[in-house]
Amino acid sequence: MDPQSLIAIASIFTAGITIAIGAIGPALGEGRAVAQALTAMAQQPDESATITRTLFVGLAMIESTAIYCFVVSMILIFANPFWNQVAGAG
Amino acid sequence: MDPQSLIAIASIFTAGITIAIGAIGPALGEGRAVAQALTAMAQQPDESATITRTLFVGLAMIESTAIYCFVVSMILIFANPFWNQVAGAG
Amino acid sequence: MDPQSLIAIASIFTAGITIAIGAIGPALGEGRAVAQALTAMAQQPDESATITRTLFVGLAMIESTAIYCFVVSMILIFANPFWNQVAGAG
Amino acid sequence: MDPQSLIAIASIFTAGITIAIGAIGPALGEGRAVAQALTAMAQQPDESATITRTLFVGLAMIESTAIYCFVVSMILIFANPFWNQVAGAG
Amino acid sequence: MDPQSLIAIASIFTAGITIAIGAIGPALGEGRAVAQALTAMAQQPDESATITRTLFVGLAMIESTAIYCFVVSMILIFANPFWNQVAGAG
Amino acid sequence: MDPQSLIAIASIFTAGITIAIGAIGPALGEGRAVAQALTAMAQQPDESATITRTLFVGLAMIESTAIYCFVVSMILIFANPFWNQVAGAG
Amino acid sequence: MDPQSLIAIASIFTAGITIAIGAIGPALGEGRAVAQALTAMAQQPDESATITRTLFVGLAMIESTAIYCFVVSMILIFANPFWNQVAGAG
Amino acid sequence: MDPQSLIAIASIFTAGITIAIGAIGPALGEGRAVAQALTAMAQQPDESATITRTLFVGLAMIESTAIYCFVVSMILIFANPFWNQVAGAG
Amino acid sequence: MDPQSLIAIASIFTAGITIAIGAIGPALGEGRAVAQALTAMAQQPDESATITRTLFVGLAMIESTAIYCFVVSMILIFANPFWNQVAGAG
Amino acid sequence: MDPQSLIAIASIFTAGITIAIGAIGPALGEGRAVAQALTAMAQQPDESATITRTLFVGLAMIESTAIYCFVVSMILIFANPFWNQVAGAG
Amino acid sequence: MDPQSLIAIASIFTAGITIAIGAIGPALGEGRAVAQALTAMAQQPDESATITRTLFVGLAMIESTAIYCFVVSMILIFANPFWNQVAGAG
Amino acid sequence: MDPQSLIAIASIFTAGITIAIGAIGPALGEGRAVAQALTAMAQQPDESATITRTLFVGLAMIESTAIYCFVVSMILIFANPFWNQVAGAG
Amino acid sequence: MDPQSLIAIASIFTAGITIAIGAIGPALGEGRAVAQALTAMAQQPDESATITRTLFVGLAMIESTAIYCFVVSMILIFANPFWNQVAGAG
Amino acid sequence: MDPQSLIAIASIFTAGITIAIGAIGPALGEGRAVAQALTAMAQQPDESATITRTLFVGLAMIESTAIYCFVVSMILIFANPFWNQVAGAG
Repeated sequence: MDPQSLIAIASIFTAGITIAIGAIGPALGEGRAVAQALTAMAQQPDESATITRTLFVGLAMIESTAIYCFVVSMILIFANPFWNQVAGAG
Repeated sequence: MDPQSLIAIASIFTAGITIAIGAIGPALGEGRAVAQALTAMAQQPDESATITRTLFVGLAMIESTAIYCFVVSMILIFANPFWNQVAGAG
Repeated sequence: MDPQSLIAIASIFTAGITIAIGAIGPALGEGRAVAQALTAMAQQPDESATITRTLFVGLAMIESTAIYCFVVSMILIFANPFWNQVAGAG
Repeated sequence: MDPQSLIAIASIFTAGITIAIGAIGPALGEGRAVAQALTAMAQQPDESATITRTLFVGLAMIESTAIYCFVVSMILIFANPFWNQVAGAG
Repeated sequence: MDPQSLIAIASIFTAGITIAIGAIGPALGEGRAVAQALTAMAQQPDESATITRTLFVGLAMIESTAIYCFVVSMILIFANPFWNQVAGAG
Repeated sequence: MDPQSLIAIASIFTAGITIAIGAIGPALGEGRAVAQALTAMAQQPDESATITRTLFVGLAMIESTAIYCFVVSMILIFANPFWNQVAGAG
Repeated sequence: MDPQSLIAIASIFTAGITIAIGAIGPALGEGRAVAQALTAMAQQPDESATITRTLFVGLAMIESTAIYCFVVSMILIFANPFWNQVAGAG
Repeated sequence: MDPQSLIAIASIFTAGITIAIGAIGPALGEGRAVAQALTAMAQQPDESATITRTLFVGLAMIESTAIYCFVVSMILIFANPFWNQVAGAG
Repeated sequence: MDPQSLIAIASIFTAGITIAIGAIGPALGEGRAVAQALTAMAQQPDESATITRTLFVGLAMIESTAIYCFVVSMILIFANPFWNQVAGAG
Repeated sequence: MDPQSLIAIASIFTAGITIAIGAIGPALGEGRAVAQALTAMAQQPDESATITRTLFVGLAMIESTAIYCFVVSMILIFANPFWNQVAGAG
Repeated sequence: MDPQSLIAIASIFTAGITIAIGAIGPALGEGRAVAQALTAMAQQPDESATITRTLFVGLAMIESTAIYCFVVSMILIFANPFWNQVAGAG
Repeated sequence: MDPQSLIAIASIFTAGITIAIGAIGPALGEGRAVAQALTAMAQQPDESATITRTLFVGLAMIESTAIYCFVVSMILIFANPFWNQVAGAG
Repeated sequence: MDPQSLIAIASIFTAGITIAIGAIGPALGEGRAVAQALTAMAQQPDESATITRTLFVGLAMIESTAIYCFVVSMILIFANPFWNQVAGAG
Repeated sequence: MDPQSLIAIASIFTAGITIAIGAIGPALGEGRAVAQALTAMAQQPDESATITRTLFVGLAMIESTAIYCFVVSMILIFANPFWNQVAGAG
């Protein structure tokens, strides 16, 4: 089998599995944070502005780990340096 | 076996497994957030507007990780750059 | 073994496993949301309208992740672009 | 080994495993929802009509994910497009 | 090895594993529902009629997922379309 | 290796593994139901007749999933249609 | 390798693994039931007769799943129909 | 490799793994039952005779599943019918 | 490779893995029983004699499952009937 | 297969899997910290400044472990010393 | 490969894995017992002598399962009967 | 395949997997510590200085285990003694 | 491949994996014991001497299981009898 | 493949995996101890000196298991006796 195809296969499989596994943690973490935010709001309605602001900062931090995975996944599909070099040489 | 078929097989398998695994986390996270939202509403009915709004923003954040997986899955099936290049060259 | 059959086998296996794994998360998440909705109703019967409405929106969000898996599964069985191209070329 | 048999084997195995894995989540989710419904009824007997109605809608949503798996499983056994094409060509 | 035997082996293995894995979820889910029903009865004996009725409907829903698995398992053993076709052609 | 032996091996292995895995869920589910029944009896001794009756119906439902597995296991050992056909033809 | 030995090996391995895996569930389930029975007795000593009776019926139900596994295991060792047929033909 | 050795290897490995896996469940189940018995005694010292008696009956039931595994393990080492037949024929 | 060595390798590996896996359950079960015994003593110091006696009987029961594994492990190393027969014949 | 391609494949696969697995822990840890911060704010609104500051320091520490993974992942894709050496020598 | 080396490799690997896996259970079980002992002492300082004595007997019981693993591990390294026989014969 | 490439591949894969797996524990441990610190602050605002100081010392200890992994990962990529020796000899 | 290298490889891999797996249990067990000791001290400051003494004895017991693993790991690296014999004979 | 390279590969892989797996337990254990220490301080500020001292001793004990792994990892990379002997002989 030619090297070009193998790199393509590895890139395809890795791109998918990276975002798939990488989505589990952030989704669960965000679910927990949102759930607790709603509980906190119900307990202390007067603080809802502070709670919302802290929640959004926290969600952004958690989402960032999902973004890392998405970025790596996109790089592997659309800007793969190994593929470019091999495909350019092929 | 020809490279074209192997890339097709890898794309098919990865597309399916990406959305399958990627749906576990968001579904559980959203289930938790919705469940807690309902509890919060029952405790503090007067705040249901704020709770609902925060819930929807949170669900959108969580859903985004599922969307990433769906996007990668669709790219692999319908806009696969590796397949296009190999199929175009074949 | 001919490429056509291998793509068919990969499509069959992936279609099944996608919806099978993809059904675990939504089912558990919806079960949790429904369970909590019933608890909330029992605690605050006067809010049952708001609770029901929020529950249905939440269930729709969670179900969407199962729908993604079902859509990918159906595409792989009935509208598989790789199969069409290979079968058309065969 | 001939392609026809391999497709048959893949279809048999996938059909079984799809409904087997796909039954775990809905069964657990429904068990949780039913259990909580009974608790809610015991706490608030006057609301049993509302609780029952919400429970049935929720069970239908959860059951739908099991139905997806069953549908895919049946399609793979009795209306498999790949098998039909290969068997028709054989 | 002849294709007929391989299909037989795949059918035997899948039939067993389908009902084996498919029995875990319903059994646990029903156990939870029954356990909660007994707790609910002890808390609210006057509602035992309503609780029993809801319990049975819920058990029927949960049992349905086990039935799906049993049906697929029986089809694979006694009404396997792939086996019939191959055995008829053999 | 002759096909007859392979079918025998597959039947032996599947028969054992089916009842082994299939016994986990029911045993745990019944253990939970029985445990809760005893708690309920201790809380509400006057309802022990109703509790016992509901418990037995529930145990029968849960046991049914173990019975399915046992039935499939026995069919595979003593009434295996694939074995009969191959052994009859051998 | 001769078929007779392979069937013997499969029978030995399956017999052991069947009872080994099949003992996990019942042991845990019975442990839970016994533990709860003792708690119930400590809470309601006057009901110890009813509790003991219900406990024994429950333990018998749970033990039955372990018995199924033991029966299959014994059949595979001492009354294996496949072995008898192959050994008789050998 | 000669069949005799393979059967010996399978028997050795299965005998060990059977009792090893089969000891997990009973040990955990008995640990739970004993722990709860001690709690019950501390809560209701006057019932220690009844509790001890019920505990011992329960432990005997749970131990029985470990005994099954030990019996199968000993049969495989010292009274293995397959080994006897093959070794007798060898 | 000669059969004698293979039996030796299988015996070595099985002996180790048997006691390794077999030690997990008893150790956890005993830890739980001891922990609960200490709690019970702190709650009811006057019953420490009864608690200690019941604890030791319980620990003996739990330890017995570890002993089974140790016995099988020692048999496989020092009194292995298969090894004796093969080594005697070699 | 040429070494250059194998190093490319290993780099692609490792880069993806590193960030994917490495995102699980930080996301869950941050979710927990954010959730608890919101609870703490609702309990003690006057301390929200101190809580927020401590939260951000903690999130930075947790995020650092995700950053390590991202850094290694980027190094493997864009600054891989092994690839550079092999590609320079090729 | 010569049998002597294979037995050495199996002994090395098994010796390590035996004590590694065998240390998990006792360490967790002892950690639980010690933790509960400290809680019990804080609740009932006057009973610290009885608690300490019972704790040490319990720890000895739990440690014994780790000792079994260590003994088997040492036997495999320094007093391996299979190695002695093969090395003596080599 | 030449040894140099294999060492490169092993180094790449190990470097990634080391930091990926090694980031799970510290991230979860730090998340727990930070979460509890926030709870403690909300309960005892006057002690926030002591709590913060202890938290930072604890985080440093936990982070150290992640640092170990990062150090090993960097050594494997940039200061690999095996690679240097082989590459220098090649 | 020569036997000497294989024994070296097995020793290296086993030494690492032994201490790696063997460190999980003790670390978790000690973490639990220390955590509970701190709670006990906060509840009963007057008993801190007794608690500290019991904690250290307990930690020593738990640490001993990690020491066993470390000892086996060091023996395999620096005092491996199999390696010595083979290397001496080579 | 030459033995030297294989030993190098085994050392690289084991060094990484040892510290990676070995970091999970200590990190979680330390996280738990630190978290509980902060809770204890908030409950009993007057005892913070004793708590801090006990915490540091405990963290040192837990960290020691991570240190063992790090030491083994460093030995395998920089002071590997097997590598030295083979590289010296090569």
